[in-house]
Amino acid sequence: MIYAKLLEILNRREPAVLLTVIQVRRTPPVLPDKAEKDDIHRNGVGKRRLWSPEWIEGSLGDLGLDNVADRLAEEVYHSGKLILQKGLRDDQGEEIALVGEPFFPPDELVVLGGGHISQALVPIAAMLGYQITVVDDRPSFAHREKFPDAEQVICDDFVHAIGKLPLHRRCSVVIVTRGHRHDLLCLEQVLEKNLAYLGMIGSRRRVHLIRNLLQEKDIDPGLIERLRMPIGLDIGAETPEEIAVSIAAELIKYRQGGITMQDIGLLKALVQSSQEGLPAALATVIATQGSTPRKAGAKLLIFQDGRMMGTIGGGCIEGDVRREALQRIESGEPGLFRFSLNNDDAAEEGMACGGTMEVFIAPVRKGD
Amino acid sequence: MIYAKLLEILNRREPAVLLTVIQVRRTPPVLPDKAEKDDIHRNGVGKRRLWSPEWIEGSLGDLGLDNVADRLAEEVYHSGKLILQKGLRDDQGEEIALVGEPFFPPDELVVLGGGHISQALVPIAAMLGYQITVVDDRPSFAHREKFPDAEQVICDDFVHAIGKLPLHRRCSVVIVTRGHRHDLLCLEQVLEKNLAYLGMIGSRRRVHLIRNLLQEKDIDPGLIERLRMPIGLDIGAETPEEIAVSIAAELIKYRQGGITMQDIGLLKALVQSSQEGLPAALATVIATQGSTPRKAGAKLLIFQDGRMMGTIGGGCIEGDVRREALQRIESGEPGLFRFSLNNDDAAEEGMACGGTMEVFIAPVRKGD
Repeated sequence: MIYAKLLEILNRREPAVLLTVIQVRRTPPVLPDKAEKDDIHRNGVGKRRLWSPEWIEGSLGDLGLDNVADRLAEEVYHSGKLILQKGLRDDQGEEIALVGEPFFPPDELVVLGGGHISQALVPIAAMLGYQITVVDDRPSFAHREKFPDAEQVICDDFVHAIGKLPLHRRCSVVIVTRGHRHDLLCLEQVLEKNLAYLGMIGSRRRVHLIRNLLQEKDIDPGLIERLRMPIGLDIGAETPEEIAVSIAAELIKYRQGGITMQDIGLLKALVQSSQEGLPAALATVIATQGSTPRKAGAKLLIFQDGRMMGTIGGGCIEGDVRREALQRIESGEPGLFRFSLNNDDAAEEGMACGGTMEVFIAPVRKGD
Repeated sequence: MIYAKLLEILNRREPAVLLTVIQVRRTPPVLPDKAEKDDIHRNGVGKRRLWSPEWIEGSLGDLGLDNVADRLAEEVYHSGKLILQKGLRDDQGEEIALVGEPFFPPDELVVLGGGHISQALVPIAAMLGYQITVVDDRPSFAHREKFPDAEQVICDDFVHAIGKLPLHRRCSVVIVTRGHRHDLLCLEQVLEKNLAYLGMIGSRRRVHLIRNLLQEKDIDPGLIERLRMPIGLDIGAETPEEIAVSIAAELIKYRQGGITMQDIGLLKALVQSSQEGLPAALATVIATQGSTPRKAGAKLLIFQDGRMMGTIGGGCIEGDVRREALQRIESGEPGLFRFSLNNDDAAEEGMACGGTMEVFIAPVRKGD
């Protein structure tokens, strides 16, 4: 249920931290194979706990460990980064490795205006993992067919539509309507919101006029300063497509690091397969060394029929991970594995040379 | 034949300037409608001349006008911008308006390496109008299916493939192979070429090592300075998709302003329809005032059945232009038209407010 719960939280636009026991070592060690078998069943490698500032769900096995985990969770929550903690001790004095993963709601992008620039920007922003809303008051522009990658396309008066949107600090807002009159109307609605990014199209001349206008209106200079106007990085963009790229680059500069919509899709598939009892396994990159195409937290969902969703790097590593995952689906036993990208085979298969990845592979259990 | 010739030149990666008579006014004027009819047949509104540094093709009607046109062509060639020249006089003392359009070969992008970053970069670069070549030595990566937008996908040893590529000052080269060993091999092959842009992936540490390596090798410091390394604008990009956007933004900063592949497609369609005698008309934006979504030189090809190719702004203007173009296909008479985007109707239809566009609409004649 923990992944279903996680999705529910993310849908409420709330953050969470997922805590997972990824390794348990008895000290002094007994026969490895026996030890490992015992570990899984007694100490629960793969046990999970879901933490948020408001509440907690699930236990890692004993109270001491849960307390350690919660302190780790706060650290993860504030750093926004996945943290691996090794060498912990549980009540039986066993050595535990614990990982805390941040799950922040997806970065959202609200595009006001459905013209040429929006039509070029939205597919790029979707590729970047943004959750996208497009608003225009013209049916021929606020049209699903023009924005297949958008989460929602709203055809409504701009001011009215903005009033109904839940704008917050994870939102980036791009104002590119058909005309300056509408741009200004939109700007007045969003300028004082606490946003990740706010940008507005406009010629340098026009931009200058608007800055003066805002200053006369006694708008907080900080807000005017924060407003990106003219919108987009200064790369000499001229065509709508070039302007869209300059905006996308600026969005990245200000993005909040939420989970991507691609990972949301992966979580949905995971929850569905666990509900349907469809055998699958989730591979999560825990740590990387050297040059690796994907970093800690990257996920790959592997189904028993060999289908895969998400990516942890492509090439050989996903082949190796899949092989291991299929065995884990058979055995039902999660585990932590190291994949080296140094060997020629890896190079041949196209991984960046010199890297290693620690990947935790856990079968998806009924009711996960 | 002039458009076929133009395509042939562009395919040879050579530049050209297209000169067109877009207006002829008899002074003193006679009855307008009669005058216009005469103009077309006697003075040849729509007459064209193709100019390049090496040769010239076609005549605008009289020697004096051709000489003026050729001087204009040189100006266009050096500025790289469309130039409109009004108030010229031909031998009969008639007032002539002439436009010179630059046609530079498409900006080319060579992507060395077919991994995650390339797969994210190529669709963006294609949208920007680049002519794209992808090289990788691994069949599973140098694969058409992975790069549907690329002009060519070459599966070959990097050094061998680069040796066969015609690299020139309109080429941007992006080095993002699977590993540093291959990156460096590629770099050695292209570093001393005269390119629009050269960028190479790499961690700051690795980049530092390579700079030192190049300095030890006595490479011209200017070349090392020109090399964008680490590649991409510094926007805190981390994922392959973010890195791709940072590279695309940097490409725009250095691009040469060649014709887009979208316009190449339009010219091909134009030549084909003229060869097949399929009725069509070409609309070219000659001048814009105020805020307009597309600038001078933007093209729209209109077929008799109402199909359109290219864009000069969408919304109402393309509707108006199409209506006018269909009439021009009927009458066979080219003409210059002004479209105002000020009216409410335009605003409703979504044009940026406050702009006007002068558009030259010419029926495609058999053998154009």
